[in-house]
Amino acid sequence: MTGAGAEGIDHVSIAVADLDGAVAFFTGVLGLRQTHAEVNERESVSEVMLVGESGGAQVQLISPVVWGGAGASGAADSGGVAKFLNERGSAVHHLALQVADVEVAARAAQAAGVRVLSETPLSGTRGSKIVFLHPKDCHGVLIELVQPAN
Amino acid sequence: MTGAGAEGIDHVSIAVADLDGAVAFFTGVLGLRQTHAEVNERESVSEVMLVGESGGAQVQLISPVVWGGAGASGAADSGGVAKFLNERGSAVHHLALQVADVEVAARAAQAAGVRVLSETPLSGTRGSKIVFLHPKDCHGVLIELVQPAN
Repeated sequence: MTGAGAEGIDHVSIAVADLDGAVAFFTGVLGLRQTHAEVNERESVSEVMLVGESGGAQVQLISPVVWGGAGASGAADSGGVAKFLNERGSAVHHLALQVADVEVAARAAQAAGVRVLSETPLSGTRGSKIVFLHPKDCHGVLIELVQPAN
Repeated sequence: MTGAGAEGIDHVSIAVADLDGAVAFFTGVLGLRQTHAEVNERESVSEVMLVGESGGAQVQLISPVVWGGAGASGAADSGGVAKFLNERGSAVHHLALQVADVEVAARAAQAAGVRVLSETPLSGTRGSKIVFLHPKDCHGVLIELVQPAN
Protein backbone atom coordinates (compact mmCIF):
# COMPACT_ATOMS: atom_id res chain seq x y z
CA MET A 1 0.00 0.00 0.00
CA THR A 2 1.24 3.45 -0.94
CA GLY A 3 0.27 6.28 1.42
CA ALA A 4 -3.41 6.09 2.36
CA GLY A 5 -3.95 3.30 -0.18
CA ALA A 6 -6.81 4.93 -2.10
CA GLU A 7 -8.32 2.24 -4.33
CA GLY A 8 -10.27 4.62 -6.54
CA ILE A 9 -13.13 7.12 -6.54
CA ASP A 10 -16.08 6.02 -4.42
CA HIS A 11 -18.20 9.08 -5.16
CA VAL A 12 -18.20 12.73 -6.11
CA SER A 13 -20.48 14.72 -3.84
CA ILE A 14 -22.38 17.76 -5.07
CA ALA A 15 -24.14 20.09 -2.64
CA VAL A 16 -27.37 21.30 -4.22
CA ALA A 17 -29.95 23.86 -3.17
CA ASP A 18 -32.75 22.04 -4.99
CA LEU A 19 -32.45 18.30 -4.34
CA ASP A 20 -35.54 17.21 -6.27
CA GLY A 21 -34.55 19.36 -9.24
CA ALA A 22 -30.99 18.03 -9.16
CA VAL A 23 -32.15 14.40 -9.00
CA ALA A 24 -34.46 15.05 -11.97
CA PHE A 25 -31.56 16.67 -13.86
CA PHE A 26 -28.96 13.96 -13.21
CA THR A 27 -31.43 11.18 -14.01
CA GLY A 28 -33.75 12.59 -16.68
CA VAL A 29 -31.35 14.92 -18.49
CA LEU A 30 -27.95 13.28 -17.99
CA GLY A 31 -29.18 9.68 -17.78
CA LEU A 32 -27.82 8.45 -14.45
CA ARG A 33 -29.92 6.17 -12.22
CA GLN A 34 -30.78 6.66 -8.54
CA THR A 35 -29.64 3.73 -6.43
CA HIS A 36 -30.01 4.95 -2.86
CA ALA A 37 -31.32 7.72 -0.63
CA GLU A 38 -30.97 8.35 3.07
CA VAL A 39 -30.94 11.11 5.64
CA ASN A 40 -27.70 11.73 7.49
CA GLU A 41 -29.13 12.75 10.87
CA ARG A 42 -25.80 13.96 12.25
CA GLU A 43 -25.41 16.48 9.41
CA SER A 44 -29.18 17.00 8.84
CA VAL A 45 -28.52 16.33 5.19
CA SER A 46 -30.48 14.34 2.61
CA GLU A 47 -28.25 12.17 0.42
CA VAL A 48 -29.03 10.59 -2.93
CA MET A 49 -26.69 8.21 -4.75
CA LEU A 50 -26.63 7.87 -8.55
CA VAL A 51 -24.68 5.70 -10.97
CA GLY A 52 -24.47 5.21 -14.72
CA GLU A 53 -25.10 2.02 -16.66
CA SER A 54 -21.45 1.03 -16.28
CA GLY A 55 -21.66 1.21 -12.48
CA GLY A 56 -18.45 2.22 -10.73
CA ALA A 57 -17.95 5.59 -9.09
CA GLN A 58 -21.12 7.28 -7.90
CA VAL A 59 -22.48 10.80 -8.01
CA GLN A 60 -23.83 11.86 -4.62
CA LEU A 61 -26.25 14.75 -4.24
CA ILE A 62 -26.48 16.30 -0.77
CA SER A 63 -28.84 18.97 0.49
CA PRO A 64 -29.85 20.22 3.93
CA VAL A 65 -33.03 18.61 5.26
CA VAL A 66 -34.16 22.13 6.19
CA TRP A 67 -32.62 25.16 4.59
CA GLY A 68 -33.75 28.75 4.56
CA GLY A 69 -32.25 29.44 1.15
CA ALA A 70 -29.41 31.70 0.05
CA GLY A 71 -28.68 34.40 2.59
CA ALA A 72 -30.75 32.81 5.35
CA SER A 73 -29.20 32.64 8.79
CA GLY A 74 -31.64 30.77 11.03
CA ALA A 75 -30.78 27.88 13.30
CA ALA A 76 -31.70 25.48 10.50
CA ASP A 77 -28.86 26.91 8.43
CA SER A 78 -26.05 26.18 10.83
CA GLY A 79 -24.98 22.89 9.27
CA GLY A 80 -21.86 22.59 7.13
CA VAL A 81 -23.72 21.94 3.89
CA ALA A 82 -26.14 24.82 4.48
CA LYS A 83 -23.19 27.12 5.12
CA PHE A 84 -21.50 25.85 1.96
CA LEU A 85 -24.64 26.58 -0.08
CA ASN A 86 -25.03 30.02 1.47
CA GLU A 87 -21.46 30.90 0.60
CA ARG A 88 -20.96 29.29 -2.79
CA GLY A 89 -24.30 28.02 -4.08
CA SER A 90 -24.64 24.54 -5.57
CA ALA A 91 -21.21 23.10 -6.41
CA VAL A 92 -18.97 20.07 -5.97
CA HIS A 93 -18.60 19.60 -2.21
CA HIS A 94 -16.12 16.75 -1.78
CA LEU A 95 -14.34 13.86 -3.46
CA ALA A 96 -14.59 10.47 -1.74
CA LEU A 97 -11.84 7.88 -2.24
CA GLN A 98 -12.39 4.27 -1.26
CA VAL A 99 -9.93 2.63 1.12
CA ALA A 100 -9.76 -0.82 2.70
CA ASP A 101 -9.30 0.44 6.27
CA VAL A 102 -10.17 4.05 6.98
CA GLU A 103 -8.29 4.21 10.27
CA VAL A 104 -5.07 2.93 8.72
CA ALA A 105 -5.57 5.29 5.76
CA ALA A 106 -6.25 8.31 7.96
CA ARG A 107 -3.14 7.60 10.03
CA ALA A 108 -1.06 7.35 6.86
CA ALA A 109 -2.38 10.73 5.70
CA GLN A 110 -1.67 12.25 9.12
CA ALA A 111 1.85 10.83 9.05
CA ALA A 112 2.34 12.77 5.80
CA GLY A 113 1.26 16.00 7.51
CA VAL A 114 -2.38 16.07 6.39
CA ARG A 115 -4.90 17.25 8.99
CA VAL A 116 -8.00 15.11 9.57
CA LEU A 117 -11.37 16.66 10.44
CA SER A 118 -12.17 13.92 12.97
CA GLU A 119 -9.78 11.83 15.05
CA THR A 120 -12.09 8.83 14.82
CA PRO A 121 -14.19 7.72 11.84
CA LEU A 122 -17.73 9.04 11.38
CA SER A 123 -20.62 7.04 9.95
CA GLY A 124 -21.14 7.68 6.26
CA THR A 125 -23.62 6.64 3.60
CA ARG A 126 -24.85 3.01 3.73
CA GLY A 127 -23.07 2.31 7.01
CA SER A 128 -19.62 3.19 5.70
CA LYS A 129 -16.86 4.58 7.93
CA ILE A 130 -15.43 7.91 6.81
CA VAL A 131 -12.74 10.45 7.68
CA PHE A 132 -12.47 13.85 6.00
CA LEU A 133 -9.08 15.39 5.20
CA HIS A 134 -8.53 19.14 5.44
CA PRO A 135 -8.90 20.75 2.00
CA LYS A 136 -6.02 23.14 2.67
CA ASP A 137 -3.73 20.11 2.92
CA CYS A 138 -5.26 18.49 -0.21
CA HIS A 139 -4.77 21.08 -2.95
CA GLY A 140 -8.09 22.75 -2.29
CA VAL A 141 -10.21 19.61 -2.35
CA LEU A 142 -12.20 18.28 0.60
CA ILE A 143 -11.23 14.59 0.48
CA GLU A 144 -13.32 11.91 2.19
CA LEU A 145 -11.67 8.56 2.87
CA VAL A 146 -14.41 5.95 2.87
CA GLN A 147 -14.39 2.33 4.00
CA PRO A 148 -17.56 0.62 2.75
CA ALA A 149 -19.61 -1.39 5.22
CA ASN A 150 -19.15 -4.67 3.37
CA MET B 1 -30.97 5.73 -23.50
CA THR B 2 -32.30 8.25 -21.01
CA GLY B 3 -31.41 11.89 -21.69
CA ALA B 4 -27.74 12.28 -22.55
CA GLY B 5 -27.10 8.61 -21.71
CA ALA B 6 -24.27 9.16 -19.22
CA GLU B 7 -22.67 5.76 -18.56
CA GLY B 8 -20.76 6.82 -15.46
CA ILE B 9 -17.98 9.05 -14.22
CA ASP B 10 -15.01 9.21 -16.59
CA HIS B 11 -12.97 11.57 -14.44
CA VAL B 12 -13.06 14.30 -11.82
CA SER B 13 -10.84 17.19 -12.83
CA ILE B 14 -9.01 19.29 -10.25
CA ALA B 15 -7.33 22.56 -11.22
CA VAL B 16 -4.11 22.92 -9.23
CA ALA B 17 -1.61 25.73 -8.88
CA ASP B 18 1.26 23.32 -8.16
CA LEU B 19 1.03 20.37 -10.55
CA ASP B 20 4.18 18.56 -9.39
CA GLY B 21 3.14 18.96 -5.75
CA ALA B 22 -0.38 17.73 -6.49
CA VAL B 23 0.87 14.67 -8.39
CA ALA B 24 3.18 13.86 -5.48
CA PHE B 25 0.26 14.26 -3.06
CA PHE B 26 -2.28 12.17 -4.96
CA THR B 27 0.26 9.40 -5.60
CA GLY B 28 2.57 9.38 -2.57
CA VAL B 29 0.13 10.48 0.14
CA LEU B 30 -3.25 9.22 -1.12
CA GLY B 31 -1.93 6.21 -3.04
CA LEU B 32 -3.27 6.72 -6.58
CA ARG B 33 -1.12 5.86 -9.61
CA GLN B 34 -0.30 8.12 -12.57
CA THR B 35 -1.38 6.56 -15.88
CA HIS B 36 -1.08 9.38 -18.38
CA ALA B 37 0.16 12.92 -18.97
CA GLU B 38 -0.23 15.27 -21.90
CA VAL B 39 -0.35 18.94 -22.78
CA ASN B 40 -3.63 20.29 -24.13
CA GLU B 41 -2.24 22.86 -26.56
CA ARG B 42 -5.61 24.51 -27.21
CA GLU B 43 -6.03 25.30 -23.51
CA SER B 44 -2.29 25.58 -22.72
CA VAL B 45 -2.89 23.20 -19.86
CA SER B 46 -0.87 20.25 -18.57
CA GLU B 47 -3.03 17.24 -17.74
CA VAL B 48 -2.20 14.24 -15.56
CA MET B 49 -4.47 11.21 -15.17
CA LEU B 50 -4.48 9.06 -12.02
CA VAL B 51 -6.37 5.93 -10.97
CA GLY B 52 -6.54 3.69 -7.94
CA GLU B 53 -5.83 -0.03 -7.79
CA SER B 54 -9.44 -0.81 -8.66
CA GLY B 55 -9.26 1.22 -11.88
CA GLY B 56 -12.51 2.88 -12.93
CA ALA B 57 -13.11 6.61 -12.72
CA GLN B 58 -9.98 8.72 -12.91
CA VAL B 59 -8.72 11.79 -11.08
CA GLN B 60 -7.41 14.39 -13.51
CA LEU B 61 -5.07 17.17 -12.42
CA ILE B 62 -4.90 20.22 -14.68
CA SER B 63 -2.61 23.22 -14.46
CA PRO B 64 -1.66 26.03 -16.85
CA VAL B 65 1.57 25.36 -18.79
CA VAL B 66 2.58 28.91 -17.90
CA TRP B 67 0.98 30.73 -15.03
CA GLY B 68 1.99 33.89 -13.22
CA GLY B 69 0.51 32.79 -9.92
CA ALA B 70 -2.39 34.15 -7.87
CA GLY B 71 -3.21 37.74 -8.77
CA ALA B 72 -1.13 37.75 -11.93
CA SER B 73 -2.71 39.26 -15.04
CA GLY B 74 -0.23 38.79 -17.87
CA ALA B 75 -1.04 37.34 -21.28
CA ALA B 76 -0.02 33.91 -20.01
CA ASP B 77 -2.87 34.05 -17.52
CA SER B 78 -5.70 34.50 -20.01
CA GLY B 79 -6.65 30.81 -20.25
CA GLY B 80 -9.74 29.44 -18.54
CA VAL B 81 -7.84 27.34 -16.03
CA ALA B 82 -5.48 30.22 -15.12
CA LYS B 83 -8.51 32.47 -14.57
CA PHE B 84 -10.14 29.77 -12.45
CA LEU B 85 -7.00 29.48 -10.29
CA ASN B 86 -6.72 33.26 -9.96
CA GLU B 87 -10.32 33.50 -8.79
CA ARG B 88 -10.72 30.40 -6.62
CA GLY B 89 -7.35 28.78 -6.11
CA SER B 90 -6.92 25.03 -6.49
CA ALA B 91 -10.29 23.26 -6.49
CA VAL B 92 -12.46 20.77 -8.35
CA HIS B 93 -12.85 22.21 -11.87
CA HIS B 94 -15.25 19.86 -13.66
CA LEU B 95 -16.95 16.47 -13.61
CA ALA B 96 -16.64 14.36 -16.77
CA LEU B 97 -19.32 11.79 -17.61
CA GLN B 98 -18.68 9.13 -20.23
CA VAL B 99 -21.13 8.80 -23.13
CA ALA B 100 -21.21 6.55 -26.18
CA ASP B 101 -21.73 9.39 -28.70
CA VAL B 102 -20.94 12.91 -27.55
CA GLU B 103 -22.85 14.62 -30.35
CA VAL B 104 -26.02 12.66 -29.62
CA ALA B 105 -25.57 13.27 -25.89
CA ALA B 106 -25.00 17.02 -26.33
CA ARG B 107 -28.10 17.33 -28.51
CA ALA B 108 -30.14 15.50 -25.88
CA ALA B 109 -28.90 17.92 -23.22
CA GLN B 110 -29.67 20.90 -25.45
CA ALA B 111 -33.15 19.54 -26.12
CA ALA B 112 -33.67 19.63 -22.33
CA GLY B 113 -32.68 23.30 -22.25
CA VAL B 114 -29.03 22.91 -21.20
CA ARG B 115 -26.56 25.27 -22.88
CA VAL B 116 -23.40 23.77 -24.42
CA LEU B 117 -20.08 25.64 -24.40
CA SER B 118 -19.23 24.50 -27.94
CA GLU B 119 -21.60 23.64 -30.78
CA THR B 120 -19.20 20.96 -32.04
CA PRO B 121 -17.05 18.60 -29.96
CA LEU B 122 -13.55 19.59 -28.89
CA SER B 123 -10.60 17.23 -28.63
CA GLY B 124 -10.07 15.99 -25.07
CA THR B 125 -7.54 13.85 -23.25
CA ARG B 126 -6.24 10.79 -25.13
CA GLY B 127 -8.02 11.71 -28.36
CA SER B 128 -11.47 11.77 -26.78
CA LYS B 129 -14.28 14.01 -28.06
CA ILE B 130 -15.79 16.33 -25.49
CA VAL B 131 -18.54 18.90 -25.02
CA PHE B 132 -18.90 21.04 -21.89
CA LEU B 133 -22.32 21.91 -20.47
CA HIS B 134 -22.97 25.28 -18.85
CA PRO B 135 -22.61 25.00 -15.05
CA LYS B 136 -25.57 27.35 -14.49
CA ASP B 137 -27.77 24.76 -16.20
CA CYS B 138 -26.18 21.85 -14.25
CA HIS B 139 -26.72 22.79 -10.60
CA GLY B 140 -23.43 24.66 -10.35
CA VAL B 141 -21.23 21.93 -11.81
CA LEU B 142 -19.24 22.26 -15.02
CA ILE B 143 -20.11 18.95 -16.70
CA GLU B 144 -17.97 17.50 -19.50
CA LEU B 145 -19.55 14.87 -21.73
CA VAL B 146 -16.72 12.66 -23.01
CA GLN B 147 -16.67 10.06 -25.76
CA PRO B 148 -13.44 8.04 -25.48
CA ALA B 149 -11.35 7.56 -28.62
CA ASN B 150 -11.79 3.78 -28.63
